[in-house]
Amino acid sequence: MTDIQESKDKLSDTLDHVVTLLKKHQLVERLVHNQEMPNHELVESLVHRQNKIELQNILNALHPADVAHILEALPLDDRLYLWDLVKVDRDGDILLEVSDAVRHTLIADMDSKELLAAAEQLDTDQLADLAPDLPKDVLQDLMDSLDTLNRERLQSALSYPEDSVGALMDFDVVTIREDITIEVALRYLRRLEVLPDHTDKIFVIDRFDSIKGVLPITNMLVKDLDETVENAMAEDVVLFHPEDVATEAAKAFERYDLVSAPVVDHNNKLIGRLTVDEVMDYIREESDADRLSMAGLREEEDFFSSVWDSVSNRWAWLAINLVTALIASRVIGLFENSIGQVVALAALMPIVAGIGGNSGNQTTTMIVRGLAIGQISGSNMKSQVNKELGVALVNGLIWGGVLGGVTYALYADYRLSLVMTAAITLNLLLAALMGVVIPLVMNQFGKDPAVGSSVLITAMTDSGGFFIFLGLATIFLL
Amino acid sequence: MTDIQESKDKLSDTLDHVVTLLKKHQLVERLVHNQEMPNHELVESLVHRQNKIELQNILNALHPADVAHILEALPLDDRLYLWDLVKVDRDGDILLEVSDAVRHTLIADMDSKELLAAAEQLDTDQLADLAPDLPKDVLQDLMDSLDTLNRERLQSALSYPEDSVGALMDFDVVTIREDITIEVALRYLRRLEVLPDHTDKIFVIDRFDSIKGVLPITNMLVKDLDETVENAMAEDVVLFHPEDVATEAAKAFERYDLVSAPVVDHNNKLIGRLTVDEVMDYIREESDADRLSMAGLREEEDFFSSVWDSVSNRWAWLAINLVTALIASRVIGLFENSIGQVVALAALMPIVAGIGGNSGNQTTTMIVRGLAIGQISGSNMKSQVNKELGVALVNGLIWGGVLGGVTYALYADYRLSLVMTAAITLNLLLAALMGVVIPLVMNQFGKDPAVGSSVLITAMTDSGGFFIFLGLATIFLL
Repeated sequence: MTDIQESKDKLSDTLDHVVTLLKKHQLVERLVHNQEMPNHELVESLVHRQNKIELQNILNALHPADVAHILEALPLDDRLYLWDLVKVDRDGDILLEVSDAVRHTLIADMDSKELLAAAEQLDTDQLADLAPDLPKDVLQDLMDSLDTLNRERLQSALSYPEDSVGALMDFDVVTIREDITIEVALRYLRRLEVLPDHTDKIFVIDRFDSIKGVLPITNMLVKDLDETVENAMAEDVVLFHPEDVATEAAKAFERYDLVSAPVVDHNNKLIGRLTVDEVMDYIREESDADRLSMAGLREEEDFFSSVWDSVSNRWAWLAINLVTALIASRVIGLFENSIGQVVALAALMPIVAGIGGNSGNQTTTMIVRGLAIGQISGSNMKSQVNKELGVALVNGLIWGGVLGGVTYALYADYRLSLVMTAAITLNLLLAALMGVVIPLVMNQFGKDPAVGSSVLITAMTDSGGFFIFLGLATIFLL
Repeated sequence: MTDIQESKDKLSDTLDHVVTLLKKHQLVERLVHNQEMPNHELVESLVHRQNKIELQNILNALHPADVAHILEALPLDDRLYLWDLVKVDRDGDILLEVSDAVRHTLIADMDSKELLAAAEQLDTDQLADLAPDLPKDVLQDLMDSLDTLNRERLQSALSYPEDSVGALMDFDVVTIREDITIEVALRYLRRLEVLPDHTDKIFVIDRFDSIKGVLPITNMLVKDLDETVENAMAEDVVLFHPEDVATEAAKAFERYDLVSAPVVDHNNKLIGRLTVDEVMDYIREESDADRLSMAGLREEEDFFSSVWDSVSNRWAWLAINLVTALIASRVIGLFENSIGQVVALAALMPIVAGIGGNSGNQTTTMIVRGLAIGQISGSNMKSQVNKELGVALVNGLIWGGVLGGVTYALYADYRLSLVMTAAITLNLLLAALMGVVIPLVMNQFGKDPAVGSSVLITAMTDSGGFFIFLGLATIFLL
């Protein structure tokens, strides 16, 4: 029995234990390094060897996913020391479980022989997940070691883009013909001795491998044994093509509560299947990747990666933001004369820009969500713009009014406070308009509106806010 | 066969078709309203009735999830008109599929009798999902209409918090004893006639309902019929308690590739099960909710909600941001004298603040991710701070240097440009420190670091950036 709370606590205890053992190991290493302990003594050192054996025992007892978790949580040196202690025949499974960034560090530490040994324990679809990270020569050796069927499968799996059904599917399909009885089908399954994970249905095909329907296993258990497969199967099958976009497939899995589904080519020929565990992993990875890219982290960054790797991962975002900040700065520069005369403008202008950015991002978030769940069509775009402009007007009058009051309290200048109210209202209207238009335009051009919209909105509302506020002030106050 | 790309296109065509029919309906309504067509004629109007029947036929042919999709995509009036056309016996299923915000609008449109009729078609666990949205009197009537077992189940399901396993579990468990043979077990299942969805394993219990193991259905199909359940079952079961946190359960489902798992109480007594479809819905809802709350949208907002509803959903976030902007503004106010003397400061200061906010948010995103996947422990926090400070120093020298150059090009003042470089570097160091500390402190106090961190970081780097830049300028330039 694995109680999930206990198991979480246990994993965290195991991690602490591993860290303690690693510290002992490091201590011994340091002693040797400082020559406080001669080298040959170390080799014999009972403590050191016991320590190593204990670590190996701990690792061997853990699920590959849990080993992966521990490797992720350790700095590079410790991670690689531990990785060497993992049994060779588990390397493949563990490589599949770790994140991309950590996988790179592990693979970089392995030689071709080790990599080949690890790869040989994997199924073709698992190999396809690993293949892009393998060195070219290892991949070639691997291809050569496969039989024709599996080589073709691997090549075809590698030929699909990362975000397609083809990249997520596996080849563990169990098939039967429609003209046999359930009893015969059951006898056939019994001969297989083991069924692939996530087999909740058997695929019914004709002699050209075309899919005719699916037979849920639970149907086989409860229907009359003399019934033919044809009568017991479901003909309304949700099926996928390898070039289908993975996010659409994920939505279909959610919508129709699927556990597995057939993948067919354009002649309706069965070529593989998609299972819910792959789909769930994909959803998680996507949502992780979205969150990272919203903050401008280009790719998954190993938590223990070097300063240089981190700098290079993050620089593009900072550069883009600096350019937009520079533009906003030049807009302010246009009004330096006004600021010189009314210095209060300098203190107030970031408020106008800031509220525009926040409000614009709220609007964009709503629009991006509407696009994702298909709520937005040409027919309702105009009503959306109107609604968001309405929200902006109300917010502008409320918050603009409040800040007009604050401005009056601070500077006792009613004209300045009116300019503040007007500028906030106008900048919120600008933010609303841009908040609707920018994601729609990005979507139109096939860009992901979730990622880039925020920078663009903020650029507009910053420069726009400064321009509106300082422009109004120049006209009405000077 | 449902081809997923075709089905997506078809759904979008259906939506267009529905919108066209609704427009015809609105036209007739308007004619009546303007008295251009007498009322009784309308009732008889062939066009109108045909139109209605066609809409009904379309709706009846769709999967509940697809009807939900269409209802989500329509403005309130059209949505309610369509909702009245949906067959009463499908109301319950559709209410479960729509988003919370849309569900509110639909329920508000139904009277007690309709709500009771809809609720009566649902299982206890589905009722528990719907119950929080039902009016109190309807919920009471519903409770009264249930038998004792189901009433107790509903009450217990409602007693668990929204984000717990108890709120996600269902009661469709199939159980057997361990001392029978597989053949007997198969015969027993056959008598059930239908097995619940997502039954990939049968739960093996003793006479006290304590869980002893699980028997995967695929094992039943391939193992020897004379084998006992005890020998064929898996004893290493991943199991949950109703009070377990749903996110942890979701991680376990991903990690161990589960389709269903038993939920037990603290005496190990089986009380229900958790299935992958519920877990997947939960993951999606969570990631949606996170994205909304990161932009300060307090709850799911119906895409067609009124301006007032939207304003009230969004105001809290704007208010918080205004307060932080006001604080930053007062920091600038401290240096009005300096700005009066060197107006260029006003144009340059938003750049210093901006780059700090962007960089701080990158750091926070990494830390939040590390917390979520358990990479952060007391032992590596110090090394994280050091690494982020290193990244900040490198970025500060690079970007600070670049902007120092730009400043010199613009204002030909090497002291101003040195102040710029120094201020950017210092603000990035502040951002790095806060970017690590703020999410860790929030996490320590049990707050979700993903949501509030961003406002806090930006507040720090705005006020801090202005203070550092204007302070340095005051010391060195005046």
